[in-house]
Amino acid sequence: MQFHHYGYVSGDPRRLPALGEGVDRPETLPDNVDVLIVGTGPAGMIMAAQLSQFPHIRTRIIERRTGRLEIGHADGIQARSVETFQAFGFADRITAEAYRITEMAFWKPDPDRPEHIKRTARTPDDPEGISEFPHLIVNQARVLDYLAESAANGPARIRPDFGFEFRGLEINDDEDYPVSVSVRTVAGHDEGVERTIRARYVVGCDGARSGVRSAIGCTLAGDQANHAWGVMDVLAVTDFPDIRTKCAIQSRSGGSILLIPREGGHLFRMYVDLGEVPADGSSAVRNTPIEQIIKRANEILTPYTLDVRDVAWHSVYEVGHRLTDRFDDVEDPESGRLPRVFITGDACHTHSAKAGQGMNVSMQDGFNLGWKLGYVLTQRSPASLLSTYSGERQVVAANLIAFDKQWSTMMAKRPEEFEDPGELEAFYTRTIEFPAGFMTEYAPSMITNDAEQQARANGFPVGKRFKSARVSRVCDGNPLQLGHQARADGRWRLYVFADAATAGENSATQRLAEWLASSPQSPLNAGGHGDARNDWFDIKVIYQQRHEDVAINQVPQVFKPTVGPFALVDLENVFGVAPDEDIFDLRGIDRNGALVVVRPDQYVADVLSLEDTGRLAAFFQRLLI
Amino acid sequence: MQFHHYGYVSGDPRRLPALGEGVDRPETLPDNVDVLIVGTGPAGMIMAAQLSQFPHIRTRIIERRTGRLEIGHADGIQARSVETFQAFGFADRITAEAYRITEMAFWKPDPDRPEHIKRTARTPDDPEGISEFPHLIVNQARVLDYLAESAANGPARIRPDFGFEFRGLEINDDEDYPVSVSVRTVAGHDEGVERTIRARYVVGCDGARSGVRSAIGCTLAGDQANHAWGVMDVLAVTDFPDIRTKCAIQSRSGGSILLIPREGGHLFRMYVDLGEVPADGSSAVRNTPIEQIIKRANEILTPYTLDVRDVAWHSVYEVGHRLTDRFDDVEDPESGRLPRVFITGDACHTHSAKAGQGMNVSMQDGFNLGWKLGYVLTQRSPASLLSTYSGERQVVAANLIAFDKQWSTMMAKRPEEFEDPGELEAFYTRTIEFPAGFMTEYAPSMITNDAEQQARANGFPVGKRFKSARVSRVCDGNPLQLGHQARADGRWRLYVFADAATAGENSATQRLAEWLASSPQSPLNAGGHGDARNDWFDIKVIYQQRHEDVAINQVPQVFKPTVGPFALVDLENVFGVAPDEDIFDLRGIDRNGALVVVRPDQYVADVLSLEDTGRLAAFFQRLLI
Repeated sequence: MQFHHYGYVSGDPRRLPALGEGVDRPETLPDNVDVLIVGTGPAGMIMAAQLSQFPHIRTRIIERRTGRLEIGHADGIQARSVETFQAFGFADRITAEAYRITEMAFWKPDPDRPEHIKRTARTPDDPEGISEFPHLIVNQARVLDYLAESAANGPARIRPDFGFEFRGLEINDDEDYPVSVSVRTVAGHDEGVERTIRARYVVGCDGARSGVRSAIGCTLAGDQANHAWGVMDVLAVTDFPDIRTKCAIQSRSGGSILLIPREGGHLFRMYVDLGEVPADGSSAVRNTPIEQIIKRANEILTPYTLDVRDVAWHSVYEVGHRLTDRFDDVEDPESGRLPRVFITGDACHTHSAKAGQGMNVSMQDGFNLGWKLGYVLTQRSPASLLSTYSGERQVVAANLIAFDKQWSTMMAKRPEEFEDPGELEAFYTRTIEFPAGFMTEYAPSMITNDAEQQARANGFPVGKRFKSARVSRVCDGNPLQLGHQARADGRWRLYVFADAATAGENSATQRLAEWLASSPQSPLNAGGHGDARNDWFDIKVIYQQRHEDVAINQVPQVFKPTVGPFALVDLENVFGVAPDEDIFDLRGIDRNGALVVVRPDQYVADVLSLEDTGRLAAFFQRLLI
Repeated sequence: MQFHHYGYVSGDPRRLPALGEGVDRPETLPDNVDVLIVGTGPAGMIMAAQLSQFPHIRTRIIERRTGRLEIGHADGIQARSVETFQAFGFADRITAEAYRITEMAFWKPDPDRPEHIKRTARTPDDPEGISEFPHLIVNQARVLDYLAESAANGPARIRPDFGFEFRGLEINDDEDYPVSVSVRTVAGHDEGVERTIRARYVVGCDGARSGVRSAIGCTLAGDQANHAWGVMDVLAVTDFPDIRTKCAIQSRSGGSILLIPREGGHLFRMYVDLGEVPADGSSAVRNTPIEQIIKRANEILTPYTLDVRDVAWHSVYEVGHRLTDRFDDVEDPESGRLPRVFITGDACHTHSAKAGQGMNVSMQDGFNLGWKLGYVLTQRSPASLLSTYSGERQVVAANLIAFDKQWSTMMAKRPEEFEDPGELEAFYTRTIEFPAGFMTEYAPSMITNDAEQQARANGFPVGKRFKSARVSRVCDGNPLQLGHQARADGRWRLYVFADAATAGENSATQRLAEWLASSPQSPLNAGGHGDARNDWFDIKVIYQQRHEDVAINQVPQVFKPTVGPFALVDLENVFGVAPDEDIFDLRGIDRNGALVVVRPDQYVADVLSLEDTGRLAAFFQRLLI
């Protein structure tokens, strides 16, 4: 964490100095805004947190509720989300208060006594060490609290405007603020008053019944629900021994339970199988009372019993898998028209809650779009950048729905319907990378290059998220996770993995450094100099030597940027390999060096040789104005 | 972290429900209080944080300043302090914003060119892995912020009463509130108004010029200062390559520098040798201007240069080593009189700042005394418990001063005065456990038993702090640090390391569990039942098996306490060994089992066999009413 370089900071360094729109930000919703986000769910709030790093953009986020969410319904947090939270500065805190899944247990009818269930397997949650981050369960309300804190602490000081309901929108591409949004005040002395907000861009993060989605003529398409589940968050006393372990439980009676322990050591969630819903769509099952759900749970858990003492929340839902064919307002991509309105999260994709995916995919929607809006609105990038949002995220949602259909179908199967009795746990183990959030692999586009030079660093697949590994910082010998040094600050990252020469020797690394600093083709010279350069790019160099064998004074200046009003030198971007884990070996990096280009949302945009400055220049010439 | 068991918690679970004095706590300072803490430095604030866990005690903390400390002068945080912060809930956060010391560099005159300095050694900061916690540097103001948050979030909701100056006190042992404290308001419309606060106990945490110390007739005794140092916290540009590493620098000219990098990546502190102070005590050196300190630093650093761009703080001080002979108001311990007034931290001991000890030792003073006041004022323990404070902490301070004298003397030596050129780094490495804060070893007393059965668990020395190791929690398979499960909640901890039998078998562990639950001699039955029992004791059992081989339903009930209004069962106190680190081997625990008793301030009070319930009963009979 860097601070003090603009002068001594006495208070919490996480609260960045207010800049631009963040200085004297008006309490009341203005008439004209750059970005209007509709809805303060996970997708909307992560976008607010991201855009708070772009203080010269006027971002507002409206919410129909009149205040903070008290109890949310999502709770699954993939390792990829925790990785994202790390970049937003709260991974440690949310981990400390969350339930951590480290293994999953499978219960089936006991062959010797099939009316009783019996534990048949226990599988580790992340057997391959996919991520250094944990898999967590914590209430959505707390995720939103942390994102709200991040948004409020950013230079733009973004806070939700509560109590505004989205009513509709109109787009007129010819105007400065092309989107006219009608909103209605839902409480207070202005209750019922409608007004129009004009926005350059609008993002609908307004959930499964999205008004923004309707307004841009998108519809959810997909299968109809046919299996009902009761879901309850409860406090109970039980002799079921795995009550604090994630469990898939299948009983002989055909019912099944997915048990998800929750944060705090006592609460847990159960998804209880309520059976098929009649084809006529009769809604009787939807009105199943909590007593019935508890009774059903007790039947499935036989011989164990569940004495529910308090119900925090419960509901009945039917699994539906539906998706929109586009995530923005461009009906015909061939038309050349560029998007003005976007939808994210549940507004685009709905599916079973049981794989714990929804909140996670929604946040990645928001993370994907946030920086793109930032770059276009600050005139760094052409507006065509915005078309990549729908292009990239619609595919991810389609993959999610395919995965979730498989998982839901399996969870709803009767034990005797499985050909192989270990099929469920085998599926779970085989596909673990998907629900952990690391299968996303963006196709080539203006922001993801082809993988032509992938062999330079096979451990950083182009299009997938940059996977961290340990290094040692040269200036202070600190052992650090390289990836964790990347804040969600909207910057592009260039990771220069040096060739075998050390600092000060004539080498490809040295020549690249000179080119980066001085060539007119260098992307660093696209955004101007000094602080502007630092605002757009974060460059880190990793030498093949141990940190004590790298002479900091010999390291090229481009890796030691000058920062702040005192023109101090930032020495924290120069690394050697960790003594016990060589990142070059671990990530298959060519000993002749490699340059890894990473997007502001942490996805690898390109891997290339240190010499191929032409490729690097061409990539950023498409992207930066 | 346990929550939800009193019903669903929507907000930050670190904010505990207000209880007792914390409900409608008056904003203004009341006339009668149980504990009056004078001063909001590290000792005072940690005591406030600790007493916030005792909501039925009326604790107030007064401070002459009218608000939060903006810039403090202490910055060294031992691993032991970070361990303590972990128990107060903010180790991760303060670590994230601190500078972390992982190695120290030593610079000396270059033999080939003695007017230049040269790096001669680099030593790791914790080569032996003394602690899993880091050694940090962060401004005292932030430590106080976090302690203030902890005090405010505790059930007693303690917040400082700013703007009150301590004027004097009188003690009349016959009264209900025996200490009359005169305070003066220093600002606002009551400025200058004096009033009397009556307290059962008063704690002077009011620093080196302590008024409370004077009021109880204590004086600091020790050597006089004779060596002056300039200290400055600055932002600078330099070619000195180790500017972000802790360094001891000795130049041929006889001057030396201790360099301490600070939080935020840019700021650093330098202690610059200003030479001997004339024997007549002339104060010229005390008025050394900052320009002179910077000039001196440049001379010492030759051939490197230091271009200071901003000065956050600077001062000149002379090293003094002074100590009071008692830390409370009992002049004659033989008199049988029990203490009513205590002093802590700098009020009792002053010494060089350069070993980074002051704030740490002060906090341990406060941590030592806080729970003792809590136990006496809630009638759990006899008032004689309070005599152990001065007894235990005066020895620690005396050891600190002896250590610091050695270190300061060495730092002030000219290079040619060392017999062995590597003497300084050898001393540093040899004594590392002391400055890390882990050499404290309390002598036997009513709260620390003799070490007669130490051989039962040699890795938990009686009188030293309980050193954590990894285990696996049975109910959820989570890998955890056993010691980190202990919050600073004022509870005694019983760690039952089981014999070789597993849960459910007839065994010493089983018999101990039955005795603990049902014997009238059991300490658990001293404090009443149910929540009272849970409020006083935290009992954890660690089996020798892996977590999956411990059947939670077979574990004795005393290890699965019933908690909260719904009478839920807390399953989180039962552990197996970690797959890759057997705590029994690592800590030398007898395979026949051992019981480790740990005080609320994390020090081991006793180690004994599982069968010796008589010894356990006798220990707590002395201590609990």
